[in-house]
Amino acid sequence: MARISPNGRVRRTPFSDGVEAAGVKGYTVYNHMLLPTVFESFEADYHHLKRHVQVWDVACERQIQVKGPDALRMIQFLTPRDLDKMTADRCLYIPVVDAMGGMLNDPVLMQAAPDTYWISIADSDLLLWIEGFACTQGFDAEVSEVDVSPLAVQGPKSDDLMARVFGDGVRALRFFSCGRFGFEGRPTLISRSGYSKQGGFEIYVEGTENGMTLWNALFAAGEDLNVRAGCPNLIERIEGGLLSYGNDMTRENTPLECGLGRFVDASQLDHCFGGRALKEELAEGSKQMIRPIAIEGDIPPCDRVWPVYADGKRVGQVKSAVWSPDHKINVAMGMIARTHWDTGTAIEVETQDGMRSATVQEKFWR
Amino acid sequence: MARISPNGRVRRTPFSDGVEAAGVKGYTVYNHMLLPTVFESFEADYHHLKRHVQVWDVACERQIQVKGPDALRMIQFLTPRDLDKMTADRCLYIPVVDAMGGMLNDPVLMQAAPDTYWISIADSDLLLWIEGFACTQGFDAEVSEVDVSPLAVQGPKSDDLMARVFGDGVRALRFFSCGRFGFEGRPTLISRSGYSKQGGFEIYVEGTENGMTLWNALFAAGEDLNVRAGCPNLIERIEGGLLSYGNDMTRENTPLECGLGRFVDASQLDHCFGGRALKEELAEGSKQMIRPIAIEGDIPPCDRVWPVYADGKRVGQVKSAVWSPDHKINVAMGMIARTHWDTGTAIEVETQDGMRSATVQEKFWR
Repeated sequence: MARISPNGRVRRTPFSDGVEAAGVKGYTVYNHMLLPTVFESFEADYHHLKRHVQVWDVACERQIQVKGPDALRMIQFLTPRDLDKMTADRCLYIPVVDAMGGMLNDPVLMQAAPDTYWISIADSDLLLWIEGFACTQGFDAEVSEVDVSPLAVQGPKSDDLMARVFGDGVRALRFFSCGRFGFEGRPTLISRSGYSKQGGFEIYVEGTENGMTLWNALFAAGEDLNVRAGCPNLIERIEGGLLSYGNDMTRENTPLECGLGRFVDASQLDHCFGGRALKEELAEGSKQMIRPIAIEGDIPPCDRVWPVYADGKRVGQVKSAVWSPDHKINVAMGMIARTHWDTGTAIEVETQDGMRSATVQEKFWR
Repeated sequence: MARISPNGRVRRTPFSDGVEAAGVKGYTVYNHMLLPTVFESFEADYHHLKRHVQVWDVACERQIQVKGPDALRMIQFLTPRDLDKMTADRCLYIPVVDAMGGMLNDPVLMQAAPDTYWISIADSDLLLWIEGFACTQGFDAEVSEVDVSPLAVQGPKSDDLMARVFGDGVRALRFFSCGRFGFEGRPTLISRSGYSKQGGFEIYVEGTENGMTLWNALFAAGEDLNVRAGCPNLIERIEGGLLSYGNDMTRENTPLECGLGRFVDASQLDHCFGGRALKEELAEGSKQMIRPIAIEGDIPPCDRVWPVYADGKRVGQVKSAVWSPDHKINVAMGMIARTHWDTGTAIEVETQDGMRSATVQEKFWR
């Protein structure tokens, strides 16, 4: 496998020194920034994540700040989710769509302060879309990428580790709620969230210079909890059905196709980009949908589109697949046509090493 | 050095099979796509590029197509360069700036057909900016990323190799001009351009399925020219003063600061984003500028911002630096304050391995 070249264009993070000291073995690039992909091995990292607690450098989830009296009104144009539900202690997952209802990003929205919102983005320059749209509309709100870097704590022992560093108050946080907790005198925004199904938190570290202090504090506090450096795990996230923007879902897909219908509010569709297209899809039903898929046989790394066939006809595609040590099957997800998305449907998946038999599953594995 | 992880989110290119067969050793990610960075070694690739001919997979220079009666008028809003100069046989380098004059991208503009333009982009999702802006303006033009992948042929023997595959007509192309030349019956857009100072061409391959046919034809035709797979070379591009967007220049910089003043037309500044800010800078002079810098001593890989000091005061930063085998010095470029940008000014550059003495140069080395 090829190396990744050091390069000023691919940004280091406030935690990169810690990640390197922990022996990172693989990276990808996300929002023009380094994102670790493996420390020991995909399988070893996976087993550890499911049993202990890990600290993840997810600084690449950059924060777009929208600040001003019109901030929430501006953000409401971007998403079919009704933001009337927004409160200071909630995180809202908001699909962001274009004029045709195609996914532009799938960020999490939080209120960082009154009239100040942070949009924690997936891998696309969403800032350019927001600014391009806003620059002609006269909103009273400023948009910028701020120096805030999420650090995730994930795994079954997350509550114990977090309580040692931020106090027992963090245990009371409910899923997708957030609050501020003190660390070295700074009230720090923390949410119960993260890109795994093992439970945990995301800490929004303000100021690059504060990154390694917190990183080191978490490792010092968690030695007996077997804390390790980790990262979003390929196997665990497919088992859990966590979609990756730019991979399982792209601009070619609507939120409904991505199984995100619960974040599309009918009442909001007259007030956002793509509303008309989403209304039509709601009325007519989706033509394809993300589905869990089990693939038989040996499979190579899924680094490209794998076309899906049934009866010799193309009926979809797989973009994520890997061997699951716990479930003893190749777990996968793919966008499958309505004609073939029923549980139990036999399909064929074309990998770069040849065709494999596969079956549409009822649900993900977590 | 860590590996790069295979991942459907980081797209393969039409030439990836060829790149892998040629033994690529390093990658970076550019526009959510793989970009090779090294085959044999930076130095070996560099010497070969300066003496022979290389074929580069630069498919990551994605093509944004703007098509329709209002296409050129829409594009004119994006750039301070006057597009009245646009003709069917010219490539125009167009800085794209935001409302404050900050660089959003530095693409090349070409006319692919009547009322159809291709914007060959650097590493940012410029499509989102253009669409965000255009979606509220009622332009009669469609914007999309099209299935067109540049393949570059670079090095002193480029003309000979290209003439063998596309006919002697390509030899007549002038620098930054373009035309269509036949390959397997398809008229293919070719420009005399590319990200090196060794001369060469860029071929705009239409259709992913046509990529490897052309790749293979170039290698078959160039065996006695010592043709090899190559890529933009870190050493050669710094020697030549070729800036990298996202690295040497970012949104924090104006085109004037980047030494791109010749692409800023005063007559156009009332008609584009950022015009007011650029007018002010033209009147008052720039506060900082990209300058060639020679650094003494041993230096580590430049994978982060290196602050520049003089008399203990911060006066700029370096983002690109490497040892030059031909010039026997560390060649670098940096953004330097007006107070210290004169040729011969002694400065200090702070690398992750410590402070190094350096001097502002008159010109780049090519």
